Amino acid sequence: MTVDVMIIMGSKSDEPVGKKATAVLKDLGIPHKLTVASAHRTPKLVADLVENTEAKVFITIAGLAAALPGAVAAHTIKPVIGVPVSGKVNLDSILAIVQMPPGIPVGGVGLDRGDNAALLAAEILALSDPELAQKLKDHRTAQEKKVRSDAQSYEE
Amino acid sequence: MTVDVMIIMGSKSDEPVGKKATAVLKDLGIPHKLTVASAHRTPKLVADLVENTEAKVFITIAGLAAALPGAVAAHTIKPVIGVPVSGKVNLDSILAIVQMPPGIPVGGVGLDRGDNAALLAAEILALSDPELAQKLKDHRTAQEKKVRSDAQSYEE
Amino acid sequence: MTVDVMIIMGSKSDEPVGKKATAVLKDLGIPHKLTVASAHRTPKLVADLVENTEAKVFITIAGLAAALPGAVAAHTIKPVIGVPVSGKVNLDSILAIVQMPPGIPVGGVGLDRGDNAALLAAEILALSDPELAQKLKDHRTAQEKKVRSDAQSYEE
Amino acid sequence: MTVDVMIIMGSKSDEPVGKKATAVLKDLGIPHKLTVASAHRTPKLVADLVENTEAKVFITIAGLAAALPGAVAAHTIKPVIGVPVSGKVNLDSILAIVQMPPGIPVGGVGLDRGDNAALLAAEILALSDPELAQKLKDHRTAQEKKVRSDAQSYEE
Amino acid sequence: MTVDVMIIMGSKSDEPVGKKATAVLKDLGIPHKLTVASAHRTPKLVADLVENTEAKVFITIAGLAAALPGAVAAHTIKPVIGVPVSGKVNLDSILAIVQMPPGIPVGGVGLDRGDNAALLAAEILALSDPELAQKLKDHRTAQEKKVRSDAQSYEE
Amino acid sequence: MTVDVMIIMGSKSDEPVGKKATAVLKDLGIPHKLTVASAHRTPKLVADLVENTEAKVFITIAGLAAALPGAVAAHTIKPVIGVPVSGKVNLDSILAIVQMPPGIPVGGVGLDRGDNAALLAAEILALSDPELAQKLKDHRTAQEKKVRSDAQSYEE
Amino acid sequence: MTVDVMIIMGSKSDEPVGKKATAVLKDLGIPHKLTVASAHRTPKLVADLVENTEAKVFITIAGLAAALPGAVAAHTIKPVIGVPVSGKVNLDSILAIVQMPPGIPVGGVGLDRGDNAALLAAEILALSDPELAQKLKDHRTAQEKKVRSDAQSYEE
Amino acid sequence: MTVDVMIIMGSKSDEPVGKKATAVLKDLGIPHKLTVASAHRTPKLVADLVENTEAKVFITIAGLAAALPGAVAAHTIKPVIGVPVSGKVNLDSILAIVQMPPGIPVGGVGLDRGDNAALLAAEILALSDPELAQKLKDHRTAQEKKVRSDAQSYEE
Repeated sequence: MTVDVMIIMGSKSDEPVGKKATAVLKDLGIPHKLTVASAHRTPKLVADLVENTEAKVFITIAGLAAALPGAVAAHTIKPVIGVPVSGKVNLDSILAIVQMPPGIPVGGVGLDRGDNAALLAAEILALSDPELAQKLKDHRTAQEKKVRSDAQSYEE
Repeated sequence: MTVDVMIIMGSKSDEPVGKKATAVLKDLGIPHKLTVASAHRTPKLVADLVENTEAKVFITIAGLAAALPGAVAAHTIKPVIGVPVSGKVNLDSILAIVQMPPGIPVGGVGLDRGDNAALLAAEILALSDPELAQKLKDHRTAQEKKVRSDAQSYEE
Repeated sequence: MTVDVMIIMGSKSDEPVGKKATAVLKDLGIPHKLTVASAHRTPKLVADLVENTEAKVFITIAGLAAALPGAVAAHTIKPVIGVPVSGKVNLDSILAIVQMPPGIPVGGVGLDRGDNAALLAAEILALSDPELAQKLKDHRTAQEKKVRSDAQSYEE
Repeated sequence: MTVDVMIIMGSKSDEPVGKKATAVLKDLGIPHKLTVASAHRTPKLVADLVENTEAKVFITIAGLAAALPGAVAAHTIKPVIGVPVSGKVNLDSILAIVQMPPGIPVGGVGLDRGDNAALLAAEILALSDPELAQKLKDHRTAQEKKVRSDAQSYEE
Repeated sequence: MTVDVMIIMGSKSDEPVGKKATAVLKDLGIPHKLTVASAHRTPKLVADLVENTEAKVFITIAGLAAALPGAVAAHTIKPVIGVPVSGKVNLDSILAIVQMPPGIPVGGVGLDRGDNAALLAAEILALSDPELAQKLKDHRTAQEKKVRSDAQSYEE
Repeated sequence: MTVDVMIIMGSKSDEPVGKKATAVLKDLGIPHKLTVASAHRTPKLVADLVENTEAKVFITIAGLAAALPGAVAAHTIKPVIGVPVSGKVNLDSILAIVQMPPGIPVGGVGLDRGDNAALLAAEILALSDPELAQKLKDHRTAQEKKVRSDAQSYEE
Repeated sequence: MTVDVMIIMGSKSDEPVGKKATAVLKDLGIPHKLTVASAHRTPKLVADLVENTEAKVFITIAGLAAALPGAVAAHTIKPVIGVPVSGKVNLDSILAIVQMPPGIPVGGVGLDRGDNAALLAAEILALSDPELAQKLKDHRTAQEKKVRSDAQSYEE
Repeated sequence: MTVDVMIIMGSKSDEPVGKKATAVLKDLGIPHKLTVASAHRTPKLVADLVENTEAKVFITIAGLAAALPGAVAAHTIKPVIGVPVSGKVNLDSILAIVQMPPGIPVGGVGLDRGDNAALLAAEILALSDPELAQKLKDHRTAQEKKVRSDAQSYEE
């Protein structure tokens, strides 16, 4: 089976955030794979996963001193999206993902925002997939409708 | 002239960070356009720029309550990269770019990291441009060589 | 029906904070409207709401990278009050609302302080409404009485 | 001489921020008064100033544990705008101004943003002064033109 | 009845922290008074309380933009102790109490540490009260014994 | 020579802050002693200094993980005032001084506020020294005059 | 009984974090002792414990203005590991442990990470204990297996 | 030449902090090696360096999203010390080094504290090197003397 997006969580405990990503990808019909690999406990597994996949975009999910996004980015020139996972400090995972040194980019999304990571991955893939682009536009339209309907509910 | 990456700065004072991005894009031979548009002072200009360009990826650069990346993302389903600009608080621009609400993704890079934003844009474009992919690999190799040569310089 | 204060929430989930504002406005007899519009999901709805209302003051309520207050301010020269909504980080919404760039002012109140936003709106309206000014003075007197009575309760 | 906006700085050292406010007010032709009064060193002066002025809006400027905006607000039901002044910590003055308790509203603007405080004061006054409203619209138009001209400067 | 320590809470909701202070003072036999007065809602009550008491030390307890300690200090040259109360941000009350401007000192203790405020007040009073000094020494000895006994409990 | 206030700096590099304290104490005619002792490098010296002085109040000045105030407080039941010294982080010394555990109080003043520490020490001593109390009142009056004169300077 | 690692908690309430350390040490067969001693309440007990033990490594566990690690380090040239304990602020204990002044090192691990403190202690001891080194390698292998098995669980 | 401590900097720009470490190690006569290797730009070089050295302790120095300490720790069961390097945010490198996940310990020292990292490494080596232990004791004595002499300089 082909895989367009590989989602790597730093720990199984990050699964609730990972599931937000898979839900969106499934919804958009994007072939993906969810797995676990730790930058610190299994650096070789991270390298192997990254180097031996046909996936085009990586979503990486980690908390604390979230090194996984950078560790993935170190092994690929494909786009890497990082999702900080919330905990007792929160600034730790956000800054660990955003403040990457020059030369190795990671695109960080919001705390626990597996859904936005999936949408960003979809936007990247949609650049060469007009059908997916249409689905994203529909998704945006649906969002807009939801807000307008919420607004409507206050109209009386 | 075709443009693949549009770089929008929230203010002309963000130019030093914008120039870091254009330097990388020029180096990689990626057609791009640098401009200024303010989410707050010229919301219509932002919308017009975003909706009337063939650019495939947006790099958005802003400081303080950095709303520009989100304002651009609100008008497109193309990938948007956000670069927080440093100032007196720093957490303001970082969090304003990273903590986007569900449904509208922005990929945030590090404080003042126009260079990494350009590299991330290049990685996205390289998914369908093998020549660019090769340039990115060469860039990585050059980086690695630089570090190894720095390491070598300590060897005596 | 005339409307003096328009309260816009960035998401229906901000309703508890919005209700704090409407409770105060109702109490003061100020005609108002509560609605939802997202700076990111419905930028056009935001512009439409702001440009097509006779409301004199805007209360805007948003969490995370709270762009709504600035987005409203971008479309009007009427006073805009911003209310940051609490979440996992809190400094994100506070700084996103307070740290506006030069030229586009927003007056930020405290985290989840829909009530204070309503009072500030009322103070603005009271500049040309002596009756409302009196109500605000009475409200202050009532507050003072409450504190003095609390103090009294410790007197034995 | 009539005064519409009273600007109170917590210390003479806040004058650079105060001058940003007076520059804008002068530009807009709004009669104003700049003075110094300390919430901690001269609480009675603060109360006297606030209670014995025909000014309609207060701009209060203070650093550190910036108590002045709240101290002014405690003595009036007129709108009070707070400007945090930068220093070694910055979060101190921002939070001291924004995190007001329920019942006593202050509208906080950005760090050192005397200019935005003046604009917000002008927006409040413009609600009953169409000429001033027009000036504010012109000011916005000028801002927009400036951004568009900056954008233009990148067009070759 | 004579009063040596006056404890002022900014709001009745601070009572749990206030009770920590009264418990210690009662234990040490120090005559005290617990009351409520708000720097923002009842500035005159604060001034009256401070100026019309024979109390020698003030304990002031407040959350958010905790202005009460500074407001009390503004009206007296007696020692003022400030206790920040915890909430959604915490750095707000800590910094508002500690970062006082030059000339008006407040001694800040830890978040919710009404007990330590009472002990500091007692230490001040004990400078001219040898009996109280002895009680404080006994209190320290008891603390030490408690730790040593806790340590003992791990010895097998 | 008798000493009423002992000022202990954690390092000679804290001298600028220490000098702010001695300047105030000299001005108020309070006998004092300035010295250096490190909680970490000379714990025994700290204990010796604290236990073998007739000083009534301690002012302790330290940066980074500022342990000195707590280390002094651990050896005395006399009042201990802590002054955090500014550096690259600032929150480190502030929190290290303020967030003392229950049972061992330290009264923290603002970052680099050696002057306020001296004033707080003076306020404590003035409880049993009416002459000093009068000097403190005069100091307050002088402060107030200075502010009023600053205010006057804006009156034309 | 010989003791290689002494674990000192600043308070009995830190026991859950202390137990994480003892669990790991027990697992690795490292003789250890868990006890309580407070830098502030029992400075002499801290000194006595540190100076009268054959333990080679110290694990120190404390919250708030966590002075214990530094207080232990002040009395020994043996390696001291510090574990910040979580609370209402978290940055307080982290910074108090990490930001030690020059000359007195403490190695800080993560918030509540008694387990990692024990592993770091074991790594230090393993430098002269090949059997322990092997156990640590096995522990790493087990961790890696766990991650790989978690990864495997997503393979279908 | 044998090497006991390997110092790895994430970038040549970290050299000032690295030099603080080598100065101490040279002073103590500890054979060491200073080099550069980037967790992100040269992950393989990091692994090679770590796996092919007889060094007993690693000092790792990095700024921003400082992943190097963790990347080194991932490849060894020898003790790893992390030194956060200062920059525009500072909390980024501190938290990235301290907040390691369970199982992979790093001992973090203070911001830019290359000297303390070297001392901690020396303390670890001194466990099996009585001569080095004596040097460390002498170093502590010298530190103490310096403080006492500084204190003496204030005695007249």
